[in-house]
Amino acid sequence: MRIASPYLLFLGDARDDLAAKTAHGIARWRRSGCLGQLRLPGCGADTGLPDLTVREAAQRGARTLIVGLVNAGGRLSPTWEVTLIAALDAGLDVASGLHTRLRSLPAVRRAAERNACRLIDVRHSRQRFGVGTGERRAGRRVLTVGTDCSVGKKYTALAIEEELSRRGVKADFRATGQTGILIAGRGVAIDAVAADFVSGAVEWLTPANEPEHWDVVEGQGSLFHPSFAGVSLGLLHGAQPDALVVCHEPTRAHMRGVSTPLPGLGETIALNLLAGRRTNPEIRCVGISLDTSRLEPRAGRDLLRRTGQKHGLPCVDPLLTGVAPLVDALLAG
Amino acid sequence: MRIASPYLLFLGDARDDLAAKTAHGIARWRRSGCLGQLRLPGCGADTGLPDLTVREAAQRGARTLIVGLVNAGGRLSPTWEVTLIAALDAGLDVASGLHTRLRSLPAVRRAAERNACRLIDVRHSRQRFGVGTGERRAGRRVLTVGTDCSVGKKYTALAIEEELSRRGVKADFRATGQTGILIAGRGVAIDAVAADFVSGAVEWLTPANEPEHWDVVEGQGSLFHPSFAGVSLGLLHGAQPDALVVCHEPTRAHMRGVSTPLPGLGETIALNLLAGRRTNPEIRCVGISLDTSRLEPRAGRDLLRRTGQKHGLPCVDPLLTGVAPLVDALLAG
Repeated sequence: MRIASPYLLFLGDARDDLAAKTAHGIARWRRSGCLGQLRLPGCGADTGLPDLTVREAAQRGARTLIVGLVNAGGRLSPTWEVTLIAALDAGLDVASGLHTRLRSLPAVRRAAERNACRLIDVRHSRQRFGVGTGERRAGRRVLTVGTDCSVGKKYTALAIEEELSRRGVKADFRATGQTGILIAGRGVAIDAVAADFVSGAVEWLTPANEPEHWDVVEGQGSLFHPSFAGVSLGLLHGAQPDALVVCHEPTRAHMRGVSTPLPGLGETIALNLLAGRRTNPEIRCVGISLDTSRLEPRAGRDLLRRTGQKHGLPCVDPLLTGVAPLVDALLAG
Repeated sequence: MRIASPYLLFLGDARDDLAAKTAHGIARWRRSGCLGQLRLPGCGADTGLPDLTVREAAQRGARTLIVGLVNAGGRLSPTWEVTLIAALDAGLDVASGLHTRLRSLPAVRRAAERNACRLIDVRHSRQRFGVGTGERRAGRRVLTVGTDCSVGKKYTALAIEEELSRRGVKADFRATGQTGILIAGRGVAIDAVAADFVSGAVEWLTPANEPEHWDVVEGQGSLFHPSFAGVSLGLLHGAQPDALVVCHEPTRAHMRGVSTPLPGLGETIALNLLAGRRTNPEIRCVGISLDTSRLEPRAGRDLLRRTGQKHGLPCVDPLLTGVAPLVDALLAG
């Protein structure tokens, strides 16, 4: 792991919890490595960690400030710069998963240099990839796919990996996005890979393995999203999944960041199976994962039951019910 | 146009004419700007241009050596390096559309510096793109799609643009690959764009225009190709085409560079329409373009007739029949 902990999570001026998805993911899956959060005025997100200033965090031993915001396009906002410089001046490293490189901000780069601190751009790997081959390889793979961005694909994958490990099944979470990489300590931010090499990068990320080993591959975007569908398709072809879990947020009115309506679960399953057969003819959908956090728990459980019946598949909310039924279906295949 | 002509086309050790696709495209669509070709021992490709050494080409006034080969992954082969250095030492610029940057080869970079010649990497634009929005924009667009890579998508698009212009219809060829850019003098090599920004780059490349203006967008890859389908999908979503022309090479046994079988024309049309409706619900397929160059002309014409009847669409070979029936269908829509 190249990123030193404990972390101070920077939530900036994130307008809501979705906009602080990176911070939330780290707080959930690596909470013991997090000292606190730092929020700017107007921030509408909250990880539940203690609010700390840069100085307080440094005094308690924080090693790295993590930029915990996401936005469409992955740009670093100029309004965050003062905080990043303060963190560097307090002796912390700064790590970011955004497209914009930290070192492209001259004042930030100078602050890192004068304090001998590191700027870590998780999204920009120096790894060179080949093009995908489409050749089958040993080992088993499950991929989380979705009706949209930000519908629980990473959470679901992490929960499946945790449940497989709990049952003694060899498994690895394979991170494909910035938050997943900050959680797992390795992975490839595939949306920053040159388009030609996306499938090849995923083939590299999930190499041949023992026949009964499971790679649990974090999905990205949606085959239906007008901004990111190409990323999702390259990931699907490269992962060659034996199994899909389809993720959905049932209260979402339109796709995140655009005016396009959400596709249905049925058509999402059908299109992913159609496209996935291209590199793995054995592909099957083993279940559905709903994010019901915007519903009352009883309404959420009702919806899980009805959705499962409608599609004839196990249907869970990882936070509400756990993912045991998905793992049962996975191992029964 | 940033690339000085006339050109010397470098075919290297291309094993066949497909491997010299870039050189062939330039020789066909910018022949007046080409002085000759340079082939290494074992080269199986031929553009029909005079064979010239670097020295002969320089004496006749060549300004730029164009790396006219393509390969999966777009790597510069070390065996070509001697020729590139000789060209620079003879005072020529060198232009390449491969992924590997010319300046990443130290000896080539030094040769360019000592001769004050330029290294032009067409594929690597300094242009920054946003993510795609999926918002509709004015003007009309036709996209060439395919059952595979290297099945005539660029040729068909260039022929359609030529025919539209001949009829007095305002039209622009929009290049999305290295050869297209070398021919048109502008464009975006979308396979080198970070995966997140492919749709956004294509939205930028084909901006809002007059209502009756046609952008003729060069397609890339195939929705069915396990290496490149994500690029094709991002391009389709970003182009928002009103019309598709589907391209196919009828003697191809399996998809180029992989062991995957070719999809049928019918399923290629169906999947492209299904995916394309996501950003343009009015999308329609206006015709089929076959590359029948590996058949006898009579067999080729027979196949065009039968294929057109089978799918109920105009079916042409741009080199054998021209593309007038496609343009008729385009303008009738």
